[in-house]
Amino acid sequence: MTFKIDQAIDLLERTPEVLKAMLSGLSNDWTRANEGGDSWSPFDVVGHLVHGERTDWIPRTYIIMNDSDQKTFHPYDRFAQFEESKGKSLEDLLEEFESLRRSNLEQLNGFGLTESDLQRVGIHPSLGPVTLLNLLSAWVVHDQGHIAQISRVLAKQYKDEVGPWTKYMTILKYSPKE
Amino acid sequence: MTFKIDQAIDLLERTPEVLKAMLSGLSNDWTRANEGGDSWSPFDVVGHLVHGERTDWIPRTYIIMNDSDQKTFHPYDRFAQFEESKGKSLEDLLEEFESLRRSNLEQLNGFGLTESDLQRVGIHPSLGPVTLLNLLSAWVVHDQGHIAQISRVLAKQYKDEVGPWTKYMTILKYSPKE
Repeated sequence: MTFKIDQAIDLLERTPEVLKAMLSGLSNDWTRANEGGDSWSPFDVVGHLVHGERTDWIPRTYIIMNDSDQKTFHPYDRFAQFEESKGKSLEDLLEEFESLRRSNLEQLNGFGLTESDLQRVGIHPSLGPVTLLNLLSAWVVHDQGHIAQISRVLAKQYKDEVGPWTKYMTILKYSPKE
Repeated sequence: MTFKIDQAIDLLERTPEVLKAMLSGLSNDWTRANEGGDSWSPFDVVGHLVHGERTDWIPRTYIIMNDSDQKTFHPYDRFAQFEESKGKSLEDLLEEFESLRRSNLEQLNGFGLTESDLQRVGIHPSLGPVTLLNLLSAWVVHDQGHIAQISRVLAKQYKDEVGPWTKYMTILKYSPKE
């Protein structure tokens, strides 16, 4: 598929509801369990998505779209949620994510982006030059990656319980990565 | 986690809503695209889940729980959806899945399963003896595997569009499997 802003938004605007359908009201036994070691629980993943709404996608869009010569993005802190989510419930984080995503998509719409805007460039601190089109596509893919991660973390809680079925359940074989 | 029927149902009953949040009203550009070759689109995956509700999990529970000596499950047709979904819309399939899942969970509740029931055994045509606990756990994991698959198929449509980000997006590297 070729990137089209409306199609990207069609997915981005669904993510809060997808996360709520998966996790809202679910017990901590599911939502606070991880894949072992320092891997992430569904709770951690939602905290990470909240942090991304605050500091990553739209702030980087502003850096690309503004007139300043400073085009380098701030590095993204992939572990910020461990501090920021403290004392919050999963329901808090799901609400926060929904509200931030709505606001961010309003801001995105507010840019009235043209095809040539999508070719504007920012500098990723480790990847180097990236276009706005790359950034917005990565936002979409990042959401889907974390939805898949949550499903995988939930599935892995039953990795022993499935018994012989483990052979057919590919999702149980993936290692704990985002 | 140790299998508990209520916790399993907590996930199983969410899946219709998760699928709707992900896919209902989404354009065919997203829902009919696959990962290349004969891999499955989100539309195909939902059709597969519908077929599972009809022929797999609860019919196999009946085989385990009834008094007959015939304990061998019918083989599951992993490609039935290509015929059965013909002429149906994705919205049809999402509705059908929701209705079948509701009915199946009612039947599951109706068994009033005890701990010892969960140790009853059926014969899987290729895996051999499996317990009811294995079967019901596999139902949960199967759902999560296909939710993750749908996310992956959606993500892959932007595999070129993310540009340099492809390096960080693990989900784009997984091969087309369930």
